Amino acid sequence: MKTFEMLESNVRSYCRSFPVVFDKAKGDQLYADTGEAYIDFFAGAGALNYGHNNEFMKSKIMEYVSQDRIMHGLDMYTKAKEDFIVSFSEHILKPQSLDYKLQFCGPTGTNAVEAALKLARKVKGRTGVFAFMGGFHGMSLGSLSITSSNSMRESAGMPLNNVTFIPYGQSFEGLDTIRYMEHILSDTHSGVGKPAAMILETVQAEGGIHVAEIEWLQSLRQLCDEHDILLIIDDIQVGCGRTGPFFSFERAGIVPDIVILSKSISGYGLPMSLLLIRPELDIWSPGEHNGTFRGNQLAFVTAKAALEFRTAERLGEQVREKEAFIKYYLQNEIAPLDANLKIRGIGMIWGIDVSHLGEEVAREITANCFKNGLILERAGRNDTVIKIMPPLTISIENLKRGCEIIAESFSRVGHTFSH
Amino acid sequence: MKTFEMLESNVRSYCRSFPVVFDKAKGDQLYADTGEAYIDFFAGAGALNYGHNNEFMKSKIMEYVSQDRIMHGLDMYTKAKEDFIVSFSEHILKPQSLDYKLQFCGPTGTNAVEAALKLARKVKGRTGVFAFMGGFHGMSLGSLSITSSNSMRESAGMPLNNVTFIPYGQSFEGLDTIRYMEHILSDTHSGVGKPAAMILETVQAEGGIHVAEIEWLQSLRQLCDEHDILLIIDDIQVGCGRTGPFFSFERAGIVPDIVILSKSISGYGLPMSLLLIRPELDIWSPGEHNGTFRGNQLAFVTAKAALEFRTAERLGEQVREKEAFIKYYLQNEIAPLDANLKIRGIGMIWGIDVSHLGEEVAREITANCFKNGLILERAGRNDTVIKIMPPLTISIENLKRGCEIIAESFSRVGHTFSH
Amino acid sequence: MKTFEMLESNVRSYCRSFPVVFDKAKGDQLYADTGEAYIDFFAGAGALNYGHNNEFMKSKIMEYVSQDRIMHGLDMYTKAKEDFIVSFSEHILKPQSLDYKLQFCGPTGTNAVEAALKLARKVKGRTGVFAFMGGFHGMSLGSLSITSSNSMRESAGMPLNNVTFIPYGQSFEGLDTIRYMEHILSDTHSGVGKPAAMILETVQAEGGIHVAEIEWLQSLRQLCDEHDILLIIDDIQVGCGRTGPFFSFERAGIVPDIVILSKSISGYGLPMSLLLIRPELDIWSPGEHNGTFRGNQLAFVTAKAALEFRTAERLGEQVREKEAFIKYYLQNEIAPLDANLKIRGIGMIWGIDVSHLGEEVAREITANCFKNGLILERAGRNDTVIKIMPPLTISIENLKRGCEIIAESFSRVGHTFSH
Amino acid sequence: MKTFEMLESNVRSYCRSFPVVFDKAKGDQLYADTGEAYIDFFAGAGALNYGHNNEFMKSKIMEYVSQDRIMHGLDMYTKAKEDFIVSFSEHILKPQSLDYKLQFCGPTGTNAVEAALKLARKVKGRTGVFAFMGGFHGMSLGSLSITSSNSMRESAGMPLNNVTFIPYGQSFEGLDTIRYMEHILSDTHSGVGKPAAMILETVQAEGGIHVAEIEWLQSLRQLCDEHDILLIIDDIQVGCGRTGPFFSFERAGIVPDIVILSKSISGYGLPMSLLLIRPELDIWSPGEHNGTFRGNQLAFVTAKAALEFRTAERLGEQVREKEAFIKYYLQNEIAPLDANLKIRGIGMIWGIDVSHLGEEVAREITANCFKNGLILERAGRNDTVIKIMPPLTISIENLKRGCEIIAESFSRVGHTFSH
Repeated sequence: MKTFEMLESNVRSYCRSFPVVFDKAKGDQLYADTGEAYIDFFAGAGALNYGHNNEFMKSKIMEYVSQDRIMHGLDMYTKAKEDFIVSFSEHILKPQSLDYKLQFCGPTGTNAVEAALKLARKVKGRTGVFAFMGGFHGMSLGSLSITSSNSMRESAGMPLNNVTFIPYGQSFEGLDTIRYMEHILSDTHSGVGKPAAMILETVQAEGGIHVAEIEWLQSLRQLCDEHDILLIIDDIQVGCGRTGPFFSFERAGIVPDIVILSKSISGYGLPMSLLLIRPELDIWSPGEHNGTFRGNQLAFVTAKAALEFRTAERLGEQVREKEAFIKYYLQNEIAPLDANLKIRGIGMIWGIDVSHLGEEVAREITANCFKNGLILERAGRNDTVIKIMPPLTISIENLKRGCEIIAESFSRVGHTFSH
Repeated sequence: MKTFEMLESNVRSYCRSFPVVFDKAKGDQLYADTGEAYIDFFAGAGALNYGHNNEFMKSKIMEYVSQDRIMHGLDMYTKAKEDFIVSFSEHILKPQSLDYKLQFCGPTGTNAVEAALKLARKVKGRTGVFAFMGGFHGMSLGSLSITSSNSMRESAGMPLNNVTFIPYGQSFEGLDTIRYMEHILSDTHSGVGKPAAMILETVQAEGGIHVAEIEWLQSLRQLCDEHDILLIIDDIQVGCGRTGPFFSFERAGIVPDIVILSKSISGYGLPMSLLLIRPELDIWSPGEHNGTFRGNQLAFVTAKAALEFRTAERLGEQVREKEAFIKYYLQNEIAPLDANLKIRGIGMIWGIDVSHLGEEVAREITANCFKNGLILERAGRNDTVIKIMPPLTISIENLKRGCEIIAESFSRVGHTFSH
Repeated sequence: MKTFEMLESNVRSYCRSFPVVFDKAKGDQLYADTGEAYIDFFAGAGALNYGHNNEFMKSKIMEYVSQDRIMHGLDMYTKAKEDFIVSFSEHILKPQSLDYKLQFCGPTGTNAVEAALKLARKVKGRTGVFAFMGGFHGMSLGSLSITSSNSMRESAGMPLNNVTFIPYGQSFEGLDTIRYMEHILSDTHSGVGKPAAMILETVQAEGGIHVAEIEWLQSLRQLCDEHDILLIIDDIQVGCGRTGPFFSFERAGIVPDIVILSKSISGYGLPMSLLLIRPELDIWSPGEHNGTFRGNQLAFVTAKAALEFRTAERLGEQVREKEAFIKYYLQNEIAPLDANLKIRGIGMIWGIDVSHLGEEVAREITANCFKNGLILERAGRNDTVIKIMPPLTISIENLKRGCEIIAESFSRVGHTFSH
Repeated sequence: MKTFEMLESNVRSYCRSFPVVFDKAKGDQLYADTGEAYIDFFAGAGALNYGHNNEFMKSKIMEYVSQDRIMHGLDMYTKAKEDFIVSFSEHILKPQSLDYKLQFCGPTGTNAVEAALKLARKVKGRTGVFAFMGGFHGMSLGSLSITSSNSMRESAGMPLNNVTFIPYGQSFEGLDTIRYMEHILSDTHSGVGKPAAMILETVQAEGGIHVAEIEWLQSLRQLCDEHDILLIIDDIQVGCGRTGPFFSFERAGIVPDIVILSKSISGYGLPMSLLLIRPELDIWSPGEHNGTFRGNQLAFVTAKAALEFRTAERLGEQVREKEAFIKYYLQNEIAPLDANLKIRGIGMIWGIDVSHLGEEVAREITANCFKNGLILERAGRNDTVIKIMPPLTISIENLKRGCEIIAESFSRVGHTFSH
């Protein structure tokens, strides 16, 4: 590890929580170079919904690479891209009668967020955007401007502007935020101009696993309609089946104007991002948002395979079953350990909120989990929410074992801090 | 192609210049799904310096994937990352006695530019940056703010600020821009505060193939030292051997404070980006700049192989030889065709400036090349610079053939427009 | 009036409501050049609390001018300034044990607001400011950025930033805005950094005559203390005795960090503005905020006289008596005319909210008043609040007569719109 | 002076250079409360072109005040305003066939600058403005953003943007700034969007008495025409006859789109400011830029008298004569004292540039002048330009005596520093 300490920037972070050198990975487990196995409740921060090195996708990669198919093509037409587009249309858009055009952005979530913001402002001719407290959208300047973490925002080194932050859902003392926004938009003396768009995650992941209510999402859609504002759903972390259906907003029956996908869209952990745009909003000029790696060919290959895999394996149903297990376990095995714990989640993203115990205890719990062979991260204010986000494909055995490790860590650390 | 037209956003651009569906690629050639072969003078906009599907790197990919080595690991420690870091240190840093720490950013050039800007502002506690007219640094908001294309800038949908643009080199009527910047920095009434950093490409590629003079680069380094300003070199397009040596700034004997690498760093066209930071500037907090795909494992594998390949194949020398050929050909076969042409370039990036003929003629020339089996793009103001940027590994035969196709196209189109 | 229409900019506005040419004025009345007299319920938008051409101040002007005392002195020491400072200290600061230093700004309210914002940001080293929906602070860029009128903001021609708008008092459905701000300031993911200052009027005048509750003002003071935020009171319109005591915040027993005075501070309608600064915040460098007319000598003369007049005439008590009359009249003579009217006010600033009747009716009412010899303006959203703001020195007869004219106009216009 | 030190903000500045308490003033002299007389080479920073307490204007004030004519009227129609407008039209606009509409702004120069910027952006729908290094336009946020002093700019406490600074005239090593701007405006990759306007002083006063060349001003006008950019002349300090003709730009024969007047426009040192707008640009909505003291009635009275006085006294001719004297004296009596001195100026604004001697010596020279009964300020970078700006009405005797005091101070201080 000396190499990393000497030569890698201090900005490295996850390695500090999981201080081993990983070498291999398969399905729901990672392996250190010492051979040690770790159950994965982290899933590459949401990029590995299909687990590590899925055999079906792997075979597609091996085939594609071995045949010298094109690996890099900017935004030229390629067979791999065509195949993916057709597949996405067949598997995702058509069954839901969704009418979107696809924009392939630089293969990071933040790049797609930037593109969405630019397009929204261009379409509406307005500079402002509404974003939500607790929201996370990325680290490049445009995305950072709508990301709510104040310490992250300070890293910009300059004021971040043209955004208005609104409490998420009813998170502030039951404030009816829909009415509040309605008020801001209607009051001629609100000081806040009409925004080009509202952007949000339907489940705030980094913010601490907060699940937006269906009615709130529906009201938001209506509010945007009434005021001619675009609704952008950042489905980077909780799209691609994380909550069960492919899109996280399906449960609310709403259709966003722009959808942002990344992380698990490629299926194999390969960098890729995607914008879905209502056709009438697609007023881009050619090349107006560009980038060298937009259109990662290998990612197209696995992304297509992932869609096929999802359908074949009925991943949506699997999520419902595993959701039930996680929910049951958390409510019956974890919640009783501490009356002040809060359990939140949906599908296969869950949080155990231990904010009452403080950051140090939260850190101890996850550190203890790691010692016992479980990888999981923390989220939320002060990193006090234990975040459970295994691959959707995790085996029931490892799902159970992981949950048990958490319970054990709670007991052990609880033992410590209760004395 | 109907699929693309119906389902892919209008933002797609290169596909409009090269309206075929590509499927395979090898070395210095691309192949359409019809089997048609095209010589590549484009090299993935600089991402394919080692050509397509290099056999050595390909074998490394096949091996890595087949062994279920870890594919996605955020910024955790991995064997693949360790191997790359050691290799980069041995092949690049140590031989030149360069002392840098490595930061792996989201795998796009623009993400690394964003990180560099944030770090520079954090280190210096100043908001301003000097950038250069003709410069291109990316499409996310921070990078876009220092990108000079006015039409691109407008796509931000808001004013882009905290940057001062300076003419590049002596591009404006011989104005001594070093003295001009010195003046701005020294005049207490210049209206321009001291910037945190200056950022530039040593060869402006998108700007129209403008090669900065060695003396100018050295003076810039000195100016930055005297005024406590960071010097950031964006070596995304012309680093990784494009000009001959690995870094484009080596010819000037200068050491930047921060270096940005992307495009060809992975060697195989896989998304990757890298920041080199002087150790004393590495004041990042853990995770202060993050991203799901920072640390693309497969790219680490090919990036390491690329460094080995570069050394083994003496690519630096190859570039010198091919540079000599290109230069000779352009000056002796192309230049005589039109007294107003301007030829500019270095290493294996060259431009034929036909701005006197206008955008339409430039378009015709490259379209004609494409018809004749050569892929090349245009750059510069109004896209009137024919840009020659083949893989560094191109065969002399194809290099010659490509140049001939250009010459033929000039003659043919010239024939048209001279009547 | 041809002269004005041909040669004065379209930006002129009050003249459109009062389309006569005024020539003389005395006490509580204005006179057109035709001799027509108008009772003044407008008081120069708050600049004429002592009425027109007060005899005591007038004699001081005549004396000062006739003796060739210095008329313009930038911020040099002058006898007139010294006399004013001593008088302000004796009449205002010492009796209340207030410890402030005085800054004489460019003689407009907006200039003092700009100075206050600059100083607050300098003192705290932060860029943000909290301002309030409905608030009005001026038209220059800094003041405009904290002014809430969206149409006014648009006139900036660029995004106005570094401000967060909060609903004023409990104006939004009883939202506890103190707790809301506390939440924003405490939540590490609110997206809103800690501001340098909060700025507000204790009675929003332009916003539609909204009187802040005493408890709210006190909580605001406490909130600022707890979070190390400066509290700036813009007392331009409702200071100088308008609400009874000299400062409008006295009723809440709070001490702001910075107080902004203008309008009636000079007493005679002469341009002047003033900043009161807690001594430890006075970290200005000499000349850091400057301006040619800072320190209007003639205004110092009348300002001193005004303070003496205020004390001698016990203006504070007069306001209490007249407040009682206005309140009684509005509640007993006007309110019964329309069940949906809302009456709001304090001291000698009152509003009759006819927003349910719409802008056109509001306009008709005031137009009718003017026809009958009463000048009064409208305020609030869509200008639907009839604003009663006579000189504090108005005679009871004219106060009564003015109120009667309003009642008559309501009846007449009401007669019209009820059919 | 204790009063000032204890109770007036540290921001006070001129009083530090002239540490006496002034009480009276007449013509070209000020008098301390001790009776001491000082010749005025400062003229209220340009606000007292007609000297102190001009008898003709004084009589108009006495008459107006004594008759209880209206003193404060916002932007209502008044007889005093009408009289001024007619007078301005007759004395200034018509003789030169100038077609402007008048906007009365808040009575400070900076307020009129703010209005000009807002209008220009509104008219052109662009956010950027070109301003010039060395320029000074005021201290409120919009004006400050185009003011070039870097230390002043820092007092904003936030980045100041939407402006591009250009070297003034040929001030940077003979750089042809017209061609440079032409280049920026024509280069599609300049990074600088087309501005709404260019704003400048034809003689930079605060910047150090730099007189723009006639050809440069004419080329600027042409450049603006060719690129559809508004030309705004800030004639606050050098308008109103300071350079001889009423407007400073008359010598170049150009007609600006917007002209800003303040300082000496009222003639008597009373706060007033004025915008002249080409009629077709007057697209303001009523009240879109407002302010309590826009339209200072007493200033209208003296402003009208000033125009009459100017005509009657042939002030333009007087300036030509006194300019000749000053120029002669400086070149023949001062310049020989030090070979490195630079003498610059026009009309009755002149500078002796002693930047080679440093700030301390410059300060000593003016301090010495003050001791000997002469008030004059310094300007320019590091305050090293002795600024000669007497009232236009100064007597030849006092003009000569003032110049002699300067010469004596140079000799005395020179005596000191040469040893």
